[in-house]
Amino acid sequence: MKIVPVIMAGGRGERFWPKSRIKFPKQFLNLLGQQSMLQLTVQRLTGLVPLENIHIVTGEEYRSLVNSQIPDLPSDNLIIEPIGRNTAPCIGLAAMVVKRKYGEDAIMVVVPSDHLIEDSIGYLDTLKTACEAAYVYDDTLVTIGITPNEPATGYGYIQIDKVITQINKHSIYKVKRFVEKPDYETAAAYLRAGGYYWNSGMFIFTVDSILSNIKTHMPDMYKNLQEIYLAQHNETYERVLNYVYPQMPSISIDYGVMEKADQVLVIPADFGWDDIGSWTSLERIRTKKDGTNVIRGNVISLDSHRCIVEADCEEKLIVLLGTEDLIVVDTDDVTLICSKDRAQEIKMVLDNLKKCNQERYL
Amino acid sequence: MKIVPVIMAGGRGERFWPKSRIKFPKQFLNLLGQQSMLQLTVQRLTGLVPLENIHIVTGEEYRSLVNSQIPDLPSDNLIIEPIGRNTAPCIGLAAMVVKRKYGEDAIMVVVPSDHLIEDSIGYLDTLKTACEAAYVYDDTLVTIGITPNEPATGYGYIQIDKVITQINKHSIYKVKRFVEKPDYETAAAYLRAGGYYWNSGMFIFTVDSILSNIKTHMPDMYKNLQEIYLAQHNETYERVLNYVYPQMPSISIDYGVMEKADQVLVIPADFGWDDIGSWTSLERIRTKKDGTNVIRGNVISLDSHRCIVEADCEEKLIVLLGTEDLIVVDTDDVTLICSKDRAQEIKMVLDNLKKCNQERYL
Repeated sequence: MKIVPVIMAGGRGERFWPKSRIKFPKQFLNLLGQQSMLQLTVQRLTGLVPLENIHIVTGEEYRSLVNSQIPDLPSDNLIIEPIGRNTAPCIGLAAMVVKRKYGEDAIMVVVPSDHLIEDSIGYLDTLKTACEAAYVYDDTLVTIGITPNEPATGYGYIQIDKVITQINKHSIYKVKRFVEKPDYETAAAYLRAGGYYWNSGMFIFTVDSILSNIKTHMPDMYKNLQEIYLAQHNETYERVLNYVYPQMPSISIDYGVMEKADQVLVIPADFGWDDIGSWTSLERIRTKKDGTNVIRGNVISLDSHRCIVEADCEEKLIVLLGTEDLIVVDTDDVTLICSKDRAQEIKMVLDNLKKCNQERYL
Repeated sequence: MKIVPVIMAGGRGERFWPKSRIKFPKQFLNLLGQQSMLQLTVQRLTGLVPLENIHIVTGEEYRSLVNSQIPDLPSDNLIIEPIGRNTAPCIGLAAMVVKRKYGEDAIMVVVPSDHLIEDSIGYLDTLKTACEAAYVYDDTLVTIGITPNEPATGYGYIQIDKVITQINKHSIYKVKRFVEKPDYETAAAYLRAGGYYWNSGMFIFTVDSILSNIKTHMPDMYKNLQEIYLAQHNETYERVLNYVYPQMPSISIDYGVMEKADQVLVIPADFGWDDIGSWTSLERIRTKKDGTNVIRGNVISLDSHRCIVEADCEEKLIVLLGTEDLIVVDTDDVTLICSKDRAQEIKMVLDNLKKCNQERYL
């Protein structure tokens, strides 16, 4: 069983602006400690396979960042997307690279580069089980469902169908349906009903399984990927890739394949997962000062509550007086002050900056 | 009639921290436009008398700031307080200097250095009238009462008694009483009742009147001032001043003299006055962007309302998203984010900084 992790690291992390910047996005930041989220992801996966097997997909503009953060990654393991095109083309491209290097039986473990995992051992155990399931069941796509501990509205949910088997003490279910991010009432109903899990965005399948599913559900994309695959063996590769890749639609693997595929399995898991989707995520994962504010940097908070403060510069002092429910992010050239309930709308700021020709702040 | 303006410029302006700093307080800042508030005050008073007559009282630490901002001020017109001791000692000291230079009949026009005056002509006209009244009525202290346009709780009030005379079309009243900053209900009752004016902190009197009143109501302070006066004529002056001045109690002229004096007159006036007492004052005097936020600097505000933003650095971008009723002040080394209803409590921050040995931010 050849296991080949594929880390998707091409995102812009816009909801973590202004700390996450177009030239230095979220996955390269050390929001979770001393190491970047990408470094933590790679480190975790080396518990599954050696670094030589680990692949990273990202954009050309982040090549040097990946090289500096993961200096020992073989250069051939860095898969460059000519342009960001969501997860379906990204996974399709990776599948073609893995097919060339390891053959159609190789098992791809596709994971995001910017999630929090608290229990690495539980995580690896779950991934191993997923690999076994992907190996045993032909033409099958496996995903990880996270046991929800609150009616979160920021995640998609997976409803399970009947149990298929038991591997390494993990029950493995057929997926009944994927559902988009629900409103609070719906999410609460899911939790009451049971049998719903958070969609973790992690997928495990053989090269053969994912490609045959792409062929069935996204035939045009499959043709594009096939062109890319064939070009890999000769010197026109880069030209073909740059020409063909942008033709593929910007579609997620969830929408393009997972929701339509016949044979999707899910392994429920509970290894302390968080997608670190926006600044408010930090409230779930960092210790609160005085039990109320989440603070990093040279900050004084007086009579302030439920605020999130991230300050870069040691010399600069940030003072909060009588404030509530704010996100404050101070960087060298930008200070963001955002109401916590607007954390999802930071992209609005970026749109505004583009409109005003202030790209230097992006 | 010798008119001698005395500008009190020794304040710390703590409520305008972090823009107002211990080394560069509010009166030296250009919060109201291109010039500092001190410069605007001096400029206005040159409509009354030449610069040679204008005196400034401040602390030693601000000598060079005054010199750089008012380079043509005669050095003898700069009165240095060895230590900040509120307005009674400050005015007493100035009275002794003016007595030496101009004699007991000179009329002192004592004004703060950090107030907004919109209508300079009306202001000068009122001051001239006040000087005439101070000249005509022996042993009299004259003050300016501002016609209130709202039940402000940030000002003291002056209740008028019977009208005494009419000079230059101004009615001049005897003061019935001074009242401390009232609560909102009381202030509203004052406005309904009529006959109440805001205490502007401007005082006009002859040297003789103020000194005889100090002698009556603060005899110990008078003795201290007398020692200082006598020392002026010889070389021990500075030593005596440094020894005697700190012995005087830190008391306001309002509390120490005005509230107790027999013969206090008030001239009601309405020349667009504001004491610029805290960051929220800016809402009254500056134009609001989109009718809601008061903004200076490189700032983007999205869905934000009733905020006050003051940003120093051109290169640094401040972004507000979905915030309400905030004061945001960004300087080189400090960013303050303060709920607007806590504007009066900024001193709390300064106390905190002292406690934590972070004096460099004061």
